[in-house]
Amino acid sequence: MEFELLKTSENSRARAGNITTDHGKIETPIFMPVGTAGSVKGIHTRDLHEDINAQIILGNTYHLYLRPGIDVIEKAGGLHKFNRWNGPILTDSGGYQVFSLGDIRKLGEDGARFQSHIDGSYHMFTPENVMDIQRSIGADIIMAFDECSPGDADYNYAKNSLELTQRWLERCFVQFNKTEPKYDHRQSLFPIVQGNTFEDLRKIAVAHVKNFDADGYAIGGLSVGEAEEIMYEMTEVCTADLPTDKPRYLMGVGTPVNILESIERGIDMFDCVMPTRNGRNGMLFTSKGIINIKNKKWENDHSVIDEDEHSFVDQYSKSYLRHLIISNEMLGAQIASQHNLAFYLWLVKTARQKIIDGNFESWKREMVVKLKERL
Amino acid sequence: MEFELLKTSENSRARAGNITTDHGKIETPIFMPVGTAGSVKGIHTRDLHEDINAQIILGNTYHLYLRPGIDVIEKAGGLHKFNRWNGPILTDSGGYQVFSLGDIRKLGEDGARFQSHIDGSYHMFTPENVMDIQRSIGADIIMAFDECSPGDADYNYAKNSLELTQRWLERCFVQFNKTEPKYDHRQSLFPIVQGNTFEDLRKIAVAHVKNFDADGYAIGGLSVGEAEEIMYEMTEVCTADLPTDKPRYLMGVGTPVNILESIERGIDMFDCVMPTRNGRNGMLFTSKGIINIKNKKWENDHSVIDEDEHSFVDQYSKSYLRHLIISNEMLGAQIASQHNLAFYLWLVKTARQKIIDGNFESWKREMVVKLKERL
Ligand SMILES: [Zn+2]
Ligand SMILES: [Zn+2]
Repeated sequence: MEFELLKTSENSRARAGNITTDHGKIETPIFMPVGTAGSVKGIHTRDLHEDINAQIILGNTYHLYLRPGIDVIEKAGGLHKFNRWNGPILTDSGGYQVFSLGDIRKLGEDGARFQSHIDGSYHMFTPENVMDIQRSIGADIIMAFDECSPGDADYNYAKNSLELTQRWLERCFVQFNKTEPKYDHRQSLFPIVQGNTFEDLRKIAVAHVKNFDADGYAIGGLSVGEAEEIMYEMTEVCTADLPTDKPRYLMGVGTPVNILESIERGIDMFDCVMPTRNGRNGMLFTSKGIINIKNKKWENDHSVIDEDEHSFVDQYSKSYLRHLIISNEMLGAQIASQHNLAFYLWLVKTARQKIIDGNFESWKREMVVKLKERL
Repeated sequence: MEFELLKTSENSRARAGNITTDHGKIETPIFMPVGTAGSVKGIHTRDLHEDINAQIILGNTYHLYLRPGIDVIEKAGGLHKFNRWNGPILTDSGGYQVFSLGDIRKLGEDGARFQSHIDGSYHMFTPENVMDIQRSIGADIIMAFDECSPGDADYNYAKNSLELTQRWLERCFVQFNKTEPKYDHRQSLFPIVQGNTFEDLRKIAVAHVKNFDADGYAIGGLSVGEAEEIMYEMTEVCTADLPTDKPRYLMGVGTPVNILESIERGIDMFDCVMPTRNGRNGMLFTSKGIINIKNKKWENDHSVIDEDEHSFVDQYSKSYLRHLIISNEMLGAQIASQHNLAFYLWLVKTARQKIIDGNFESWKREMVVKLKERL
């Protein structure tokens, strides 16, 4: 893949750029809908393309490895053929999911041994086999296998964890470089900057990942429970030292406000389950603030969900959506998820345009106030 | 509404016609997707119109009455405005749902007292208030309040039950005739022919409903556990005597084979939850037979779900759909439901064309063999 930096804001680190992959172009800053088990929950591939205007989606290595399994995905000809999404795909390394398993995983120098949350069977992830698995899945962008240390880890834990992640990164690149893509398109490996909430560890981590001259760099281990201000501070520490000519991906972030704040600090790529997960629970993000559609106040509000029309679903009424969510009708989850994803994509697209136009910061200041409103 | 009988087959009772409502035309024979609580589960209104080519959908009075409640629907301006479906709608009377409640309902001359399955609250349905409720919901076609006797009822039970249904029907028409539509479109009331599996009771029931010179007539109390041959026999008994210049609606039927057999016996309208309910469970209906997508045999079948392309969802692969259904991913239920509904609509549309072309019976004989195949 290639990255072209189109513009950097004069008043902040906000950037607009283009990533070119063998499955098409990605205009940054970008939000990537999460397709955990190979589908973005509740959303047809066609609507991702045509209604939500997604440019790249995520897959989770951990979930896909367990189900349907790598054999099925290989026989399909890779994840793009399997889920019929022809655009760019990014897969995480499974590290975050495995470490979230808690008691049913065990960590060692070699890798992580864990039990499937589905059937309790035992499995082992190593830097080497996670590269092989991501070769088989065939995403355009694949992630290094890392340890995401707990949000409340102390300095020593975080330092040891970072050093393990660094040794694993070297093994990832060795394996990546001695293997070839399995399908007819290129793959890029992104290292992940860890270091918890410790500034010096983050700086060490950034210096280390730069050695690999990768196509892009991810920042991991944030948005895991720490205060938002600390997340922004750590993001700034990282983007200060990361190469400017490569995209930066802030993993697992976040609310619309988090995204605008992080764009201002120099981030180009985001992913988060929030628009779909919170949507299924009745939370809608709009340019005027947050709607909890379950609230009684919407029971007889027959106006459209969102007059901004980010998606065709915006024309359903608030009263109807409330009824569907409260009645556990699938269509409610579908509508809310589709609305939220379309809104996130609108948000990053607009941010990009404001950066190009040279007025991102003033727009962002106004938006952040509105986005925090509870309607 | 008006009904125009375009053609009756020379070799069977199969008919092609047009129903005209204030929300548009319905080409018969027709299948009506079921939108229990105001949404066809998993399907956007847009896709019902543009992809599935539905011409009329159902709503369930019992469900809509309990949630969101009649007040909300009235304030929305009726169900069409509430769920944003601009085509014709038919509502059932709630009778079938109430009688399915078993222990938590009590039947009397006046009506049926029942407890909500949601919160246990007590409610009463009478012929009069069910007419009023359906006026408030505002469907184009509304149904009489009836008792659907159990499939295994004896003759005496069935006879008493039919007589109660007949007294209720008279009360329904009195109430219907002394009330006006609440919105700016007409409503038609269909009586329901009961009589269980007893030929003489069915004949009595048909003779009685004809007294009301209704816009259309429904046949109820079939497909409730009796043998298929008995269902067909009872359907024939009814269609032999029902007016030829009015549409006939066979309630709650059925499989694709049931639908073709019943079209041949003179039925014009159908509804059933099978395409969506069985779809959610992984059963696909196709013109080559039935697919249980959960079967291991589809695990590595990467061909499209259905090469007939009834819907855009037909281009997902069998392997992918199997994975989604087994993983309980919402998208799996959405794809299977949308495919099945599109197939049902294709089936009745093709039947109509064959009737018009004069070769329905030979096509039907071939189709029935294929539709029963287990792939
Ligand atoms: Zn919107
Ligand atoms: Zn099909």
